[in-house]
Amino acid sequence: EEPTSEEVLRKVANALVRPGKGILLCDESPATMRKRFADIGHYNNEESRRLYRQMIFTTDNLGESISGAVLHQETLHQRSDKGHLLPMQMKYHRLVPGVSVDIGLSPLFGSEDELTSLGLDDLTERCKEYKANGCHFSKARCVFGINPNTPSYSAIMENARVLGRFASLCQKGGLVPIVQAEIFPVGYHGLDRMQKVTETVLSAVFKYLNDYQVFLEGCLLAVNMVTSGNSSTWKCSPQDVAMATVTALNRTVPPAVAGVLLLSGCLSEVEATANLNAISQFVGKKPWPITFIFGKALHGSSLRAWKGNPENVKIAQDILLEKAKDNSRAALGPYK
Amino acid sequence: EEPTSEEVLRKVANALVRPGKGILLCDESPATMRKRFADIGHYNNEESRRLYRQMIFTTDNLGESISGAVLHQETLHQRSDKGHLLPMQMKYHRLVPGVSVDIGLSPLFGSEDELTSLGLDDLTERCKEYKANGCHFSKARCVFGINPNTPSYSAIMENARVLGRFASLCQKGGLVPIVQAEIFPVGYHGLDRMQKVTETVLSAVFKYLNDYQVFLEGCLLAVNMVTSGNSSTWKCSPQDVAMATVTALNRTVPPAVAGVLLLSGCLSEVEATANLNAISQFVGKKPWPITFIFGKALHGSSLRAWKGNPENVKIAQDILLEKAKDNSRAALGPYK
Amino acid sequence: EEPTSEEVLRKVANALVRPGKGILLCDESPATMRKRFADIGHYNNEESRRLYRQMIFTTDNLGESISGAVLHQETLHQRSDKGHLLPMQMKYHRLVPGVSVDIGLSPLFGSEDELTSLGLDDLTERCKEYKANGCHFSKARCVFGINPNTPSYSAIMENARVLGRFASLCQKGGLVPIVQAEIFPVGYHGLDRMQKVTETVLSAVFKYLNDYQVFLEGCLLAVNMVTSGNSSTWKCSPQDVAMATVTALNRTVPPAVAGVLLLSGCLSEVEATANLNAISQFVGKKPWPITFIFGKALHGSSLRAWKGNPENVKIAQDILLEKAKDNSRAALGPYK
Amino acid sequence: EEPTSEEVLRKVANALVRPGKGILLCDESPATMRKRFADIGHYNNEESRRLYRQMIFTTDNLGESISGAVLHQETLHQRSDKGHLLPMQMKYHRLVPGVSVDIGLSPLFGSEDELTSLGLDDLTERCKEYKANGCHFSKARCVFGINPNTPSYSAIMENARVLGRFASLCQKGGLVPIVQAEIFPVGYHGLDRMQKVTETVLSAVFKYLNDYQVFLEGCLLAVNMVTSGNSSTWKCSPQDVAMATVTALNRTVPPAVAGVLLLSGCLSEVEATANLNAISQFVGKKPWPITFIFGKALHGSSLRAWKGNPENVKIAQDILLEKAKDNSRAALGPYK
Repeated sequence: EEPTSEEVLRKVANALVRPGKGILLCDESPATMRKRFADIGHYNNEESRRLYRQMIFTTDNLGESISGAVLHQETLHQRSDKGHLLPMQMKYHRLVPGVSVDIGLSPLFGSEDELTSLGLDDLTERCKEYKANGCHFSKARCVFGINPNTPSYSAIMENARVLGRFASLCQKGGLVPIVQAEIFPVGYHGLDRMQKVTETVLSAVFKYLNDYQVFLEGCLLAVNMVTSGNSSTWKCSPQDVAMATVTALNRTVPPAVAGVLLLSGCLSEVEATANLNAISQFVGKKPWPITFIFGKALHGSSLRAWKGNPENVKIAQDILLEKAKDNSRAALGPYK
Repeated sequence: EEPTSEEVLRKVANALVRPGKGILLCDESPATMRKRFADIGHYNNEESRRLYRQMIFTTDNLGESISGAVLHQETLHQRSDKGHLLPMQMKYHRLVPGVSVDIGLSPLFGSEDELTSLGLDDLTERCKEYKANGCHFSKARCVFGINPNTPSYSAIMENARVLGRFASLCQKGGLVPIVQAEIFPVGYHGLDRMQKVTETVLSAVFKYLNDYQVFLEGCLLAVNMVTSGNSSTWKCSPQDVAMATVTALNRTVPPAVAGVLLLSGCLSEVEATANLNAISQFVGKKPWPITFIFGKALHGSSLRAWKGNPENVKIAQDILLEKAKDNSRAALGPYK
Repeated sequence: EEPTSEEVLRKVANALVRPGKGILLCDESPATMRKRFADIGHYNNEESRRLYRQMIFTTDNLGESISGAVLHQETLHQRSDKGHLLPMQMKYHRLVPGVSVDIGLSPLFGSEDELTSLGLDDLTERCKEYKANGCHFSKARCVFGINPNTPSYSAIMENARVLGRFASLCQKGGLVPIVQAEIFPVGYHGLDRMQKVTETVLSAVFKYLNDYQVFLEGCLLAVNMVTSGNSSTWKCSPQDVAMATVTALNRTVPPAVAGVLLLSGCLSEVEATANLNAISQFVGKKPWPITFIFGKALHGSSLRAWKGNPENVKIAQDILLEKAKDNSRAALGPYK
Repeated sequence: EEPTSEEVLRKVANALVRPGKGILLCDESPATMRKRFADIGHYNNEESRRLYRQMIFTTDNLGESISGAVLHQETLHQRSDKGHLLPMQMKYHRLVPGVSVDIGLSPLFGSEDELTSLGLDDLTERCKEYKANGCHFSKARCVFGINPNTPSYSAIMENARVLGRFASLCQKGGLVPIVQAEIFPVGYHGLDRMQKVTETVLSAVFKYLNDYQVFLEGCLLAVNMVTSGNSSTWKCSPQDVAMATVTALNRTVPPAVAGVLLLSGCLSEVEATANLNAISQFVGKKPWPITFIFGKALHGSSLRAWKGNPENVKIAQDILLEKAKDNSRAALGPYK
């Protein structure tokens, strides 16, 4: 007997957040890769990006700490040296391929530089294509900045609506949606304001997921850790971050949600892992698996070791694997 | 050092939902008591109601299964034969006194017989008074009926707002609010529709609790069990009810909520306890204590045994205690 | 044949805003009257208030410039020296009696000193009583303050909801509702911000009037004139005020609304009349009658002339009549 | 001195609704044109469509009754036989070119066949392009169906939001938006339900236009006439339609809106003109110009006369001109 589409979504979602596993963000746009490569003095073109991604996805045993990776659309069509499509290569290494489905940000007219996300227009067709490319999940991202007047209620509602519709279309297309609501830690605000804003945003997001009939058991949330603003004089210990993050999540994220994925934002690799570890150790209700969805915080050092030189592939992979293991251990906290 | 008002609210809320304890509803209005007394051929006046309530609150060992009771305002000023105010009498028996704070229902103009709840106008003053009368918690109730077109979105929004403001005013007044969102099981609808309506209503309620800055850790939810309509041909086993109820709660109730209290609605004593038991035994996420908040399903048989005759007090109390123990055992399920 | 209740509401609403007529606010609470009387060295009690109101309502020919007056509940039961109930006395002078139905303001928890209005609980019963007392219309007031973060979206929604429900209950009770949404001109804000806030508030108010099924043709709006804050360095001419006020109204008030009543807020008598005149002269769309609903700006000078001395009644009435005529002329602008 | 962007929008919007002028809908997709051509036994390809549109836009004196036409994107790049781009050809005939900017409909998951509209993703870029192509205005369309449970509140909110964002992006891009909220007259519902649904939808639309900071003075509304359902036994006279339509508009459309454009839906040419005429003659408030935005009801007969045969161009143009004049006269009612 065929599993229902809800059973399929639930199974994939659960697989992505198995104990000690997290998700790798590899969905940098070509423009972003240009900056990353510039940092290591490497040129940026489709081939250099292909080689970089191949390096990552052929890392032996990466699948022990990483459940899946979010890809840029370009990567879906790239092949390994041996001629395998990279998404297939990933599956061989037991990594579930996913894809970033929003296509950029657009200013909200009349707002204080607030943004909304694009990509709904052809999403139904693209979901079919991504599915055919081997993807099992997707990620859509909305962002929020904090200043004295923002995020405005209008911006929160607009973005929550967009996330609701994204998730609904992805589920209809058979892809588990990762709903990414990301509040930037940029500003002078304290930990308390960041927590309050996170709670307000997530409360609106889940109201709209309900309005759009999203099946929460087949849906994941990606969200910022709750920290103080990067220009704030209020310095937070990992324990402070853990308390604020878990409290905000408990006040807003329904237990049915299949898992919570924490973003590293502009945290350093060390900070990201330390916060993750504190959150895992934090004693409190956590009715969803909480794990990591990291990009630079996972493969930043690896990239710098690689430098685009084929001779460095092994050492870069070793570094990546080490980082992945570190975060895997950090994520393995008391979960109940 | 003084505990903060949030700590006080949290402590009271947690005490009300300790393992194996539930809440007794004794907040029937004089008009409702008239009907109850008529059923047993007893006259209804303030004295007969006082005697009835005294019978209940002097039941030895009731505090082992019951954490607290919701009173009608009248009861706050009544005294036991020995001259103790009934709320004090309750405390002596280790029952926390609470009070019903809404003052009635009002039709929503232009709706299909939909209702909203009254009682916000003087709630700030009343909270002070209730607090002085010894109350530690309160209960505000909104109701929803199911027909092909109801509950309407307008009615859901109106009632969710009213509950948000009730809870906010009660917390400001130092009383733990029990937010009662009750969907009547009256109609031909199936289990699936009841579940969907429950999810939609609760999703709106928690959005508004967020809007009104309600402290969820010091707040309890009272909600109907999810059953099919009483005129439906779809008969549900306690296991069906458990699955639907726990699923609906997991999709909407934030983990931070201090506890979930299930209403018996128009279920019989036996059905109510059987459903409660199935919910406790149901294996699934339950990040909040789930227990009972029963009225007739707890003291209905006791009332019939009492018949208003002083000689029957002991037997009535024994029956009440037995019912309380039954439900206490039923509520003692796997909670994680 | 009986007119329908909608026809009755429409007829009363239209009568209140006939060309060249405005409304007198006489609904000061006893506490407010104490301050007013203190200013003139007069004692405040029910009798002094009765005499003051009697002075006003026995002014000959006042009905040529004033259509009706909003009373405090107390006044409904007071009688003239000749033994006529004051509302009946008003009718004899061709003034339609109305009543203020909100019963006070209450802080919104967690807000920056924002408020909501009370009085819904027993409004259904009170409407019956007011109707029996001879009232044909009612007034419910919500207020908003401007600071960098307020009015907040939550406060706007809460108050718009309250106004919607007020209006709906009053219409059901047979009283034409005056929906008073009043933004205080207190602060450093400029004319542009006051205009934007007025537009945002009124837009929400009319959305909720629609949600609550309010019959706009039998409903009046009372709203502040759009001025800059009283501490702002931005000084506005009456023409500036007229442009901003009429623009804000045109962007938000549906044409079906029976009339717009402008409040004088803390403007002086002279400023209020000058602004009203400029608004009347302003060339632009005005699909509703626009007139005045003034309190102190109408009877302030009269009160100071009266001083509580029976000998001054005639001179006080002459002053009041003069003020009423001034505003009547000011309100008689091009209306199309 | 440069006019501000608001002044430009206002000027264009006003020009489109000058007395006795209406708008021609020529934005049929190639798929729709296939059907229209099939009816007259003509083949459908880009060239046949070009010839058809050329026939329309070279009609002498059409500009006396028609202010502008809404084009399909394809038409923007087509040229007349003489080599002029069709939008330029239009300007030569004093017709303002506009463009349809939504790109289709998408089902709302979990709804009863309700829809939302697509086309926001690349609208900012497209507006620049359309502007460069000579367009001065745009049209975005959302649709609603009536059945016992629809339109649902969720669908109303989704579509109102989409229209708000469309209008905001178009205005930012310098194009006057025509906000088309179209309720289909398909079903058994009576005139009263159609009116109520129209009021509810428009009330939501204008709330969201306010949220999205849309400048109403530079914005037009396109909306269905209020009729009973096409399967209803309730037959409406043009006077009934006029009363219901004008009442619904007065209850919801702020006076600041530059104009109201009535759609002909599935009405015949004769019915459409008769209803339009009755609306113009209807005595009541109409603080906006009300005129027509017709497609088939304007050029249907003309198309049948043309049959794709160059010899019929003159006769087809004569018919079109006659229809345009008829509707121009019908639209010339008392406007105040």
